[in-house]
Amino acid sequence: MFKKILIANRGEIALRIIRTCKEMGIKTVAVYSTADKESLHVRFADEAVCIGPAQSSESYLKIPNIISAAEITNADAIHPGYGFLSENAAFSKICQEHDIKFIGASPDMISKMGDKASAKATMKAAGVPCVPGSEGILKDFQDCKKVANKIGYPVMLKATAGGGGKGMRAVKSEDKLEAAWESARQEAKAGFGNDDMYMEKLIEEPRHIEIQIVGDQTGKACHLSERDCSVQRRHQKLTEETPSPFMTDELREKMGNAAVKAAEYIKYEGAGTIEFLVDKHRDFYFMEMNTRIQVEHPITDEVVDHDLIREQILVAAGVPISGKNYYPKLHSIECRINAEDPFHNFRPSPGKIETLHLPGGHGVRVDTHVYSGYTIPPNYDSMIAKLIATAQTRPEAISKMKRALSEFVIEGIKTTIPFHIQLMEHPDYVEGNYTTKFMEDFVLKEVEDEDHE
Amino acid sequence: MFKKILIANRGEIALRIIRTCKEMGIKTVAVYSTADKESLHVRFADEAVCIGPAQSSESYLKIPNIISAAEITNADAIHPGYGFLSENAAFSKICQEHDIKFIGASPDMISKMGDKASAKATMKAAGVPCVPGSEGILKDFQDCKKVANKIGYPVMLKATAGGGGKGMRAVKSEDKLEAAWESARQEAKAGFGNDDMYMEKLIEEPRHIEIQIVGDQTGKACHLSERDCSVQRRHQKLTEETPSPFMTDELREKMGNAAVKAAEYIKYEGAGTIEFLVDKHRDFYFMEMNTRIQVEHPITDEVVDHDLIREQILVAAGVPISGKNYYPKLHSIECRINAEDPFHNFRPSPGKIETLHLPGGHGVRVDTHVYSGYTIPPNYDSMIAKLIATAQTRPEAISKMKRALSEFVIEGIKTTIPFHIQLMEHPDYVEGNYTTKFMEDFVLKEVEDEDHE
Repeated sequence: MFKKILIANRGEIALRIIRTCKEMGIKTVAVYSTADKESLHVRFADEAVCIGPAQSSESYLKIPNIISAAEITNADAIHPGYGFLSENAAFSKICQEHDIKFIGASPDMISKMGDKASAKATMKAAGVPCVPGSEGILKDFQDCKKVANKIGYPVMLKATAGGGGKGMRAVKSEDKLEAAWESARQEAKAGFGNDDMYMEKLIEEPRHIEIQIVGDQTGKACHLSERDCSVQRRHQKLTEETPSPFMTDELREKMGNAAVKAAEYIKYEGAGTIEFLVDKHRDFYFMEMNTRIQVEHPITDEVVDHDLIREQILVAAGVPISGKNYYPKLHSIECRINAEDPFHNFRPSPGKIETLHLPGGHGVRVDTHVYSGYTIPPNYDSMIAKLIATAQTRPEAISKMKRALSEFVIEGIKTTIPFHIQLMEHPDYVEGNYTTKFMEDFVLKEVEDEDHE
Repeated sequence: MFKKILIANRGEIALRIIRTCKEMGIKTVAVYSTADKESLHVRFADEAVCIGPAQSSESYLKIPNIISAAEITNADAIHPGYGFLSENAAFSKICQEHDIKFIGASPDMISKMGDKASAKATMKAAGVPCVPGSEGILKDFQDCKKVANKIGYPVMLKATAGGGGKGMRAVKSEDKLEAAWESARQEAKAGFGNDDMYMEKLIEEPRHIEIQIVGDQTGKACHLSERDCSVQRRHQKLTEETPSPFMTDELREKMGNAAVKAAEYIKYEGAGTIEFLVDKHRDFYFMEMNTRIQVEHPITDEVVDHDLIREQILVAAGVPISGKNYYPKLHSIECRINAEDPFHNFRPSPGKIETLHLPGGHGVRVDTHVYSGYTIPPNYDSMIAKLIATAQTRPEAISKMKRALSEFVIEGIKTTIPFHIQLMEHPDYVEGNYTTKFMEDFVLKEVEDEDHE
């Protein structure tokens, strides 16, 4: 087993990983930018190394500084968390070259799954259903038109290097195709320096349902059931739940098997997530694979009673998995609490937390790195806490989440708590009747600022 | 279902009950003494009524004030929590007379089980193994000597009205009997105004293992397995766990069946606990029955994935139980965090909490009513939080508890956190090798005050 793990991340996930390491008797090294010196991950790690100034490019993304920190402290493994360097093939390779175990996917795996077109080709070869579309990159506009006619409108044009909705266009009919082609390519060129495009059939009434998998070094894989992440705003997940209210035992079996087959086909090592779109007929299509831990992993922790970070560490240390799959015994919901003002278009609201009171009690888990008096730096992601409520049934989990949200007090900044309270009372959410389009029609009711004092 | 429940208690248990009521859509009324007006149970209830000054006898124990508060607010039920009026037969009866459902045992049941001698007689009649001893009250010293000779030394002399170790004497041989008889009676007379004594065989190497039961209004009962509460200091529980490290499947079956049989025999309604002493041969003996929720109930919540307060409310509302028993799926430990100085004989340490940071993350639950800036009044019990750690196995639960204790920061007062950290590392505790005598030999190592700033 590892003796000392460096956590190449910040915020709640850094603290989350430190907690599991402590429980496993593994020493920890935190790295931090000057903006994060008051952060809890620095306080709770056994050692902490400052790796640069606030800008991520000069600290959390600065590979030489992180490798130096690992060498100075004699760390024998690095956990990258999510974001930052977690899906950076070069970093994974450099760790390998320095004999430091990267707790994540191999460089090859990251490269293969990071490029959307090659990921799709791989999955197709593994027998995983993919959205009908172009075979890789579209050669030119003629090719684009031909593929669209073959698969039928509506279609989706996507930049291979794209992400976050950039370089992406939905096209309903042939007369709109050329304009979309031109503008998507321009956007991709400007955004990613790469205007390669591919095409897929547009899935109507889609749900984003992902399967958590874990693969070990012997090539064996298992799944830990699904998470429904359809509630998204501009491709950012806001809340997730497991089981999916749209799921059936039969569909879970099919999707789970497909995910395990895919993971074993590519000999995937570590925790990973295969994201699918599921249409209203409960047909499912491979969307992408994340070769890292996900933000929303705690809901899986809760319903299968296992710690996924622990599983990641065990697998990275060479411990084989049992091979059995895990099924939800409870219902769990996560709300991402962001320092954003939901009443003003979710604009960021960094600043000092004057008062903090965390909810607690039965079935409530909070993963957070903030505390009373903590100042949220403006440099990073706006997520400040994950609130997870778990109960026997979905209605009970929703009630528990509402109760927990109602006693969560954060003063000094704006947060997305009022949004989540309204979401948990929205009739379509309560019915479990939502797709990835849900937020497009969601209207937040203005409420007076509650006085918690 | 009840529309509004008044919680006749304070502190963490009041908040605990409010949380469950909120999740069930039931309105809540808090009652509070003037010393508790800044308490969270007051803030989080839908309504709050001040019922008197700081002294419990004038507020939390003042039945007319509580009944008035319930009538003014139209509460249709009262939850008494633990302590205070939770096992007060007169209060249960007065609630009945005012058509307010008392969420607890009937007046008869409380009377029957509150008197130790009559409780034992009832349990014997129900076929539950009891410690060999006198048939009820000892007539005089001659009777005392006769019984002692019959059951054999060592014996235990106990006052029927006793509690907390008062009026209790262990006697190893006949020549010590008369002195013990006299002094125990004097103590009982002074403490309880009642010097009635009974005698039991002294159980050597005893463990305190209790079975949680729930009975419904149809007379059906089930058990929710055991809690091991052997780690006690002066008869005060310090930490509890489930499953008991001493338990076997066979013993659980026997003890569980005995508890269910007893509950059904007396037609017990509500949640209750049957406390047993278990000797080194795994023979078990009825000790007493608590006709209320216990402080340590959350560890059962966690390992059976049910909310015991919810079960109490459902049963009180007339919902029948399924009848199946519940078995631990995980291992859970609770540490009682008291405002006491463990390095100075656990003396109380009330005062203002300057800084509070609660532990969180996977498998960690905190039930507390305190917050940063809260002043602990000197008038009540010193428990300020319950820290509960739950994991797949006992070693993992201990590791998780150590991790959680290490990140629990309370500044401004002394707490029992340093004691619990040492306890979790004590070889006998780690081995699960402890009896109710464990704390008699426990030596706390002096540590320098840690600087958490």
